[in-house]
Amino acid sequence: MSITFINLFDVPAGTDEEFMRFWSSVNEYMRAKPGYLSHRMHRSLAPEARYRYANVVQWESPEAWEAAHDDGFRALVTAPDLPEFTSVPTLFEVIHAGSVEA
Amino acid sequence: MSITFINLFDVPAGTDEEFMRFWSSVNEYMRAKPGYLSHRMHRSLAPEARYRYANVVQWESPEAWEAAHDDGFRALVTAPDLPEFTSVPTLFEVIHAGSVEA
Repeated sequence: MSITFINLFDVPAGTDEEFMRFWSSVNEYMRAKPGYLSHRMHRSLAPEARYRYANVVQWESPEAWEAAHDDGFRALVTAPDLPEFTSVPTLFEVIHAGSVEA
Repeated sequence: MSITFINLFDVPAGTDEEFMRFWSSVNEYMRAKPGYLSHRMHRSLAPEARYRYANVVQWESPEAWEAAHDDGFRALVTAPDLPEFTSVPTLFEVIHAGSVEA
């Protein structure tokens, strides 16, 4: 079962560049992992949004997603010079879908 | 510019059926609107997730999305017998994307 990982980021104003540098390093690492399928990283149109960044990622399975969070990942996200932000990471399954063509 | 609307839902345990009935009625209404492109509605794998439902919707433009929130929409979301839940609705633009084929 392919799954969707949505990670919502709470990024303080003024730290966007630093945050995106950090996020890019993690993204580069994760997309090389077995089971990674695709991602779309989003920035909110409104600067006052509750979550200003949202990454929506497709993985082959919950197991592949878990396995990707290995020692290399942990080293990236515990580096001492990280920007200050919090995130809400959640694994989802699609339960309903449609498009204008359907 | 096509945009992504992400709506996060905080649905109390035990109200899923009622919530999905409500959500389906709004979804049916919105997907008939000009500018609607596609949606994927997600449920979290873990029952203790901060947001147990997340709808990710593509619209042609912020203007189309705004225009779709008309009187008919407001009537649906202010009906007296609605389930109790809160949501975090946010308009996003995609700033980075990739896939395993790329």
